[in-house]
Amino acid sequence: MVKVKFPDGAIKEFENGATVETVAQSISTSLAKKAVAGRYNGQLIDFNAPLEADGEIEIITKDSEDGLKVLWQTASLLLGASLSDLYSEMKFGEGSVSEHGFFLDTDNAAGQVAETEFEKITQKMQEIVKSGAKVERLVVDEKEALALVDGDAYRMELVKEAVVSGKVILHKLGNFVDVSAGAYLEKVSSIKIFKLLSVAGAYWKGASSNPMLQRIYGTAFYKQKELDAELQRRQEARERDHRVIGNDLDLFFVDPKAGAGLPYWMPNGATIRRTIERYIIDKEVSRGYEHVYTPVLANLDLYKQSGHWDHYREDMFPPMDMGDGELLELRPMNCPSHIQIYNHHIRSYRDLPLRIAELGMMHRYEKSGALTGLSRVREMTLNDGHTFVTPDQIEEEFKNTLQLMVSVYADFDITDYRFRLSYRDPKNTHKYFDDDEMWEKSQKMLKSAMDDLGLDYFEAEGEAAFYGPKLDVQTKTALGGEETLSTIQLDFLLPEKFDLHYIGADGEEHRPVMIHRGIVSTMERFTAYLTEMYKGAFPTWLSPKQVTIIPVKNELHLAYCEELRARLAAANVRVSIDDRNEKMGYKVRQAQVTKVPYILVVGDQEVASNEVAVRRYGEKKTVNVTKDEFVNEILADIASYSRTN
Amino acid sequence: MVKVKFPDGAIKEFENGATVETVAQSISTSLAKKAVAGRYNGQLIDFNAPLEADGEIEIITKDSEDGLKVLWQTASLLLGASLSDLYSEMKFGEGSVSEHGFFLDTDNAAGQVAETEFEKITQKMQEIVKSGAKVERLVVDEKEALALVDGDAYRMELVKEAVVSGKVILHKLGNFVDVSAGAYLEKVSSIKIFKLLSVAGAYWKGASSNPMLQRIYGTAFYKQKELDAELQRRQEARERDHRVIGNDLDLFFVDPKAGAGLPYWMPNGATIRRTIERYIIDKEVSRGYEHVYTPVLANLDLYKQSGHWDHYREDMFPPMDMGDGELLELRPMNCPSHIQIYNHHIRSYRDLPLRIAELGMMHRYEKSGALTGLSRVREMTLNDGHTFVTPDQIEEEFKNTLQLMVSVYADFDITDYRFRLSYRDPKNTHKYFDDDEMWEKSQKMLKSAMDDLGLDYFEAEGEAAFYGPKLDVQTKTALGGEETLSTIQLDFLLPEKFDLHYIGADGEEHRPVMIHRGIVSTMERFTAYLTEMYKGAFPTWLSPKQVTIIPVKNELHLAYCEELRARLAAANVRVSIDDRNEKMGYKVRQAQVTKVPYILVVGDQEVASNEVAVRRYGEKKTVNVTKDEFVNEILADIASYSRTN
Repeated sequence: MVKVKFPDGAIKEFENGATVETVAQSISTSLAKKAVAGRYNGQLIDFNAPLEADGEIEIITKDSEDGLKVLWQTASLLLGASLSDLYSEMKFGEGSVSEHGFFLDTDNAAGQVAETEFEKITQKMQEIVKSGAKVERLVVDEKEALALVDGDAYRMELVKEAVVSGKVILHKLGNFVDVSAGAYLEKVSSIKIFKLLSVAGAYWKGASSNPMLQRIYGTAFYKQKELDAELQRRQEARERDHRVIGNDLDLFFVDPKAGAGLPYWMPNGATIRRTIERYIIDKEVSRGYEHVYTPVLANLDLYKQSGHWDHYREDMFPPMDMGDGELLELRPMNCPSHIQIYNHHIRSYRDLPLRIAELGMMHRYEKSGALTGLSRVREMTLNDGHTFVTPDQIEEEFKNTLQLMVSVYADFDITDYRFRLSYRDPKNTHKYFDDDEMWEKSQKMLKSAMDDLGLDYFEAEGEAAFYGPKLDVQTKTALGGEETLSTIQLDFLLPEKFDLHYIGADGEEHRPVMIHRGIVSTMERFTAYLTEMYKGAFPTWLSPKQVTIIPVKNELHLAYCEELRARLAAANVRVSIDDRNEKMGYKVRQAQVTKVPYILVVGDQEVASNEVAVRRYGEKKTVNVTKDEFVNEILADIASYSRTN
Repeated sequence: MVKVKFPDGAIKEFENGATVETVAQSISTSLAKKAVAGRYNGQLIDFNAPLEADGEIEIITKDSEDGLKVLWQTASLLLGASLSDLYSEMKFGEGSVSEHGFFLDTDNAAGQVAETEFEKITQKMQEIVKSGAKVERLVVDEKEALALVDGDAYRMELVKEAVVSGKVILHKLGNFVDVSAGAYLEKVSSIKIFKLLSVAGAYWKGASSNPMLQRIYGTAFYKQKELDAELQRRQEARERDHRVIGNDLDLFFVDPKAGAGLPYWMPNGATIRRTIERYIIDKEVSRGYEHVYTPVLANLDLYKQSGHWDHYREDMFPPMDMGDGELLELRPMNCPSHIQIYNHHIRSYRDLPLRIAELGMMHRYEKSGALTGLSRVREMTLNDGHTFVTPDQIEEEFKNTLQLMVSVYADFDITDYRFRLSYRDPKNTHKYFDDDEMWEKSQKMLKSAMDDLGLDYFEAEGEAAFYGPKLDVQTKTALGGEETLSTIQLDFLLPEKFDLHYIGADGEEHRPVMIHRGIVSTMERFTAYLTEMYKGAFPTWLSPKQVTIIPVKNELHLAYCEELRARLAAANVRVSIDDRNEKMGYKVRQAQVTKVPYILVVGDQEVASNEVAVRRYGEKKTVNVTKDEFVNEILADIASYSRTN
């Protein structure tokens, strides 16, 4: 007998080998009807998998998130069965579920699968669905398992890794065998609503040194309207996806052969980045920040002292052994570098608040599967700043930082965000840096600052870091998600670890508090965020190209255009002339594709009246204004940043 | 007998064991009198060292460079003898010669030697000189040698390394033994003119993982006027040394514990650097360059393909093994990154010249002994650019680049430089990239461009790189030396290695030529160069602080100063008020020390007449002008860069 515990705490006994179905039936027939699988001791298992030990059970129904995962896992198997029928030479890697569907890795020596073949593959999948085929759950020994996938080196490797107590669990549909112990629908006839979506490269086991396989993505749902919603979401996502726009507007690229997660910024993207960098530095300098440059490398000892090596090592790059006993490390964060700046002089209370800032390059070894365009990378440059304050200055400096942040958000026209104040957990104060008074006082200060400034916020107890309370700015992503764009983090710990001091008015040494803060995040993430927020239609001040001038006829109007171009360029406007021998309408349409904010058309009328015909991006009508008016207009536009008001 | 060959080719036989002195005497008595040592088969040896094998000889006289080295080596021994008398517990590392004198590494457990003790040490050295003591050359076996330096772990280690065929050559003066086989003067009485100079830290054997020893520097000459000239040179060097000025003006620092050769730019230095960076980017963009950002890391394969790993490996950082088979390398140069940018699109002849530029960070593993402030570092950011041209465009693009260069030099008021055109060696054309026509044509093009522009240059046959001819700009350093600040380098090879193409007007694929060019070198080296050239008195546009306003009395004049400060700050002038409760004269002197270009003093008269009293750096007189006049003056000054005309 096995003891099975239910989510409500009740415990029932079943015969050893009873299935999830047995258990579901024991509760209610209607539950058993809706059920598709179980979660036993945390693991998804088949509806007909035997329970062979005591455990906690959860019955998985169609309408749950897990229910969808079971559908997707089965759809991946269905895809495999279809492909192995169609492509006899094909080898298979992993098949599994992703955030919005399923995928299967394939290696077809005879030629890659093109998206144009999706129709044929879909037909074959539908045939199998209609045939009423069942998924078989096999529990076999290693030798048998290997025989079932004989000739497919990938799956043979998966089999070897899947052996538990001499046994391997496989799932089989038709002649296709998948090496996975997860949960599958028993009847593929439930997979009526599915769609193959795309193909992409994926390294075998995610390692760039391994062969590149071809990953086929698809999705499936129990209801048509769910699939429709997902396709709609994907369409919207595609329109905003900074990787797609980044490619269309030639902003950046990543070359996995040269290094995954290491973006190359093309001239257009570099112009946007440089504009952001100069903007934020100037803004910070005008608010009393002192910008520095510090090295991306340091002796590993620095990160041992800071604690990064102990707590953060798995995200750090491997140290470089310089052969003379020195270990150099690519920094994962800039704080220790700014502490070096602080410590280079003896500091007095008169020097505080000391605001050290930098566009600091850092390296973090993100897993290759997590890397995404510019938003998740391995080399990044953070708009970083560390303010060193006396404990009494926390509130005032917190306000200063907030005001800077709000002003920057306004300049970029970022409006969809909310503030989160994170406190320590009052029931577990022993889990945090040990200074009750400092915590109490500083948490009150932060709250009082928010109230003073009249900013809306929500409070999150237990969300603070070990070393101090913080404020996060949660922005809505283009796709409705939420991500932290900016942070203000108090830190009582690093000043201890590095034994930082300032000389107080009393002539004695005191311990400063550090405030870590990032306003516009990393250049990479912020550019990705803005690209998606603006859908690639960057406001004029950020736009890589600001004006395209199109002469109606080169021979008649080019000289006029040249003079205007020179005048705009002298005023630092990014302007070009399209003087190709193409039709005017064609050139206008091409310029619109690049989302250039201003298209100026110059023909007889414009030359005669010293005007330009202006077409703003996103507006349908063309407006004629004098050259002077246009120059004033665009310069005012640039000077106003992205502000819509 | 041994056969001795003279510099003129003559060969004479001497008895085995004959000394350098014997040989010198055999030529002439006067030569023997001037001689101090010999160079035998390339090695410096003592005057009385026996010649025990055939070889080529050179007699070293006092008035040669080698003669000075022998004096310095002996002075180092004399210093050791003096120190070991004075500090009985002292241990000794290496003692040797440097570019301008000698040094000896010491380790005194009882306390470091202070420069204030130099007088005492000098006296003891003079005593030994007067005593007529002689340097003994000892040839002993390892056991005896170890006994002579017993208790001194450093010298015992040196002894073990010095054993050749079971023997060690030592030199002894008084009770002090030095482990060196080099050449010494026999009589220390020749060391009459010497001076101890400074102390500094030096790692044992140059490895940062080893103990830090105390290196004592000194110099010595045969004539007083030579010492005087050297001390003068040192004084001048000290006044211009960017490390000294960098410290005085708080521009940067290096912390060897955090990493040798990895400078931290303090806010003042960072302001200079940022100003240079923005200047050169804007200048280049206005000349058709497209600035990019590319990653500092890449897969090692990229540097294998470029040839850097084969030919340049010893200057590169060790690859990082990412554990999944990927080896990531910190780039030693930016060219492969820009080739990635070129190759990201199919290029047409219409796209050329394609000018890719970047402030590209690179890492080179310079030997720790070679590291110097900002001028020799391990992490550097190069004003780098690569232009891709058709072979026909070489001359025109070379001219463009030269004109850019000359314009930049004028903006920084760099006038003391000369151009060097480096060609391949016409007698050894097989040693160069194999394309005679390309070489002939391109060398002619470069020369013709120089002539067309009317620029003076000298030609250097055989100085070209393997892969193409180049132009170097040789600037005079502050100390009279010469260094290459800028380069234009043609490259026929990398386009081959990366199989670069462009589609020609004929629709066919053609091979472009690459032009590597650096205008203002690395930010590190250029800042060091400018600091020394300007002696720290940076022109207004570069100066970290541009204006200091000093109210005569805070209570009467501060409000007026505040209003002026706000007005200047709004015009992006870097301005501060010194409102400390100190005397006006003291504040003026303090401001002068920081070399701020403008000091404005505001008292009753200035407030009454709406003026400021302006004191320009380096001028003695104060000039009263209206506020408006001053604002116009400083803005014009900033806009004119450093141009003196």
